[in-house]
Amino acid sequence: MTSSGEQVAPGWVAIVGGGPGDPGLITRRGWQLLGEADVVVTDHLAPLELLDELELSFGRTPKVVDAAKFPGGRSMPQEVINSHLVDEARAGSNVVRLKGGDPFVFGRGLEEVWACAAAGIRVEVVPGVTSAISLPALAGVSVTHKDVAQAFTVVSGHVPPGHPESRVDWGALARSGATLVVLMGVRSMPAIAAALLAAQLPAETPTVTVIDGASDAVEVIRCRLDELAAEASRFRPPAVTVIGAVAGL
Amino acid sequence: MTSSGEQVAPGWVAIVGGGPGDPGLITRRGWQLLGEADVVVTDHLAPLELLDELELSFGRTPKVVDAAKFPGGRSMPQEVINSHLVDEARAGSNVVRLKGGDPFVFGRGLEEVWACAAAGIRVEVVPGVTSAISLPALAGVSVTHKDVAQAFTVVSGHVPPGHPESRVDWGALARSGATLVVLMGVRSMPAIAAALLAAQLPAETPTVTVIDGASDAVEVIRCRLDELAAEASRFRPPAVTVIGAVAGL
Repeated sequence: MTSSGEQVAPGWVAIVGGGPGDPGLITRRGWQLLGEADVVVTDHLAPLELLDELELSFGRTPKVVDAAKFPGGRSMPQEVINSHLVDEARAGSNVVRLKGGDPFVFGRGLEEVWACAAAGIRVEVVPGVTSAISLPALAGVSVTHKDVAQAFTVVSGHVPPGHPESRVDWGALARSGATLVVLMGVRSMPAIAAALLAAQLPAETPTVTVIDGASDAVEVIRCRLDELAAEASRFRPPAVTVIGAVAGL
Repeated sequence: MTSSGEQVAPGWVAIVGGGPGDPGLITRRGWQLLGEADVVVTDHLAPLELLDELELSFGRTPKVVDAAKFPGGRSMPQEVINSHLVDEARAGSNVVRLKGGDPFVFGRGLEEVWACAAAGIRVEVVPGVTSAISLPALAGVSVTHKDVAQAFTVVSGHVPPGHPESRVDWGALARSGATLVVLMGVRSMPAIAAALLAAQLPAETPTVTVIDGASDAVEVIRCRLDELAAEASRFRPPAVTVIGAVAGL
């Protein structure tokens, strides 16, 4: 109780990985929490079809907040999303932050966890099926394969090779023997292909790119590494590119 | 119809990723197919707790086959599992091959898909939440982090560094800038740590190991890279080890 009236018990926040797009590929726990949510904060990468099912399945219609529609648009600072999650929970709401794929794979989910924890809000992380593995899988590509690939690297193409903010040694990745799975790489793909070729990854290395894998408009483009820069002009986000022998099996 | 009697319509096979162990972390699609299964072929790495729920949830009790109990024991050839899936489906059963984690992350799921397809059996792959990302997540560790890790590599420690069958250049991985996530690495961990140190990965690089992450006996061990070889004597399978700056956040 405060002098200003009844104090509201805070709600909780759940950072939920929604999977690669198919509404069947969210986890049971993630789905359960969506059914208990008062507020869902989401974005265009999440499997939004799920939201249409909530009324029928649970008889509840949560408030849906599009994170991209906050002040600042698509480039909204992460801090604004963090504050929003905290404020809604403080006001008594149970909040699901619904993301595409897994929240800890380039999803900035950990920053949201920290913000909630720092504010004393109960927070749960629900891992999801990552697009990095599952979208190639839906195209018949396994990122590992006995005797062929004993490792795979998932790398963001958001910061291109050689960029001052890049923390990735693309030459080392080329030599590592790991399958490469590039996310957010549409714009950087010519530079990525050039960096891998310069590091002696063979020109004939097979690649497969899954474009818009979450939708019915899914497109799969296969080519050799030395054709990738030219083919990339046909790519559009969201896309996942697999580079390595497994792409040719 | 054949002269020997009524011909049975073949069933289907689904290769289902069961997630890291928590029964809430299987996908909705995977759970649905378990509810339709006549036969479940599984092993000790899968979330077996799910099987206990089937009777209550669906009123059905499928036949459960432990893949490790086939002739040949734990080292049963993959071909025997493949044949079993095909034979059960040919006999008219709907078969779920339930695996831990994701079927395409060191799970040999693709070989099972190929065997079914070659036999003309309808086969579906249901991706799962991989233990490589989700077990660290449950310990508060994100394999990627803005400005810290723009890539992560998932690598099997089953074949140690320098082994003739190794397809992994551990020195290149040490230089790549990617977070390293080692699965099946308990026995090889001293050799892996030595290879990474020899390639100039700093001695003070943080590591975190999640042991038995699927069970209530979960244990989390944190140490520096140069302590990892010694600490590894306390590890037991199944374990996931994360090596990189994100392990220290």
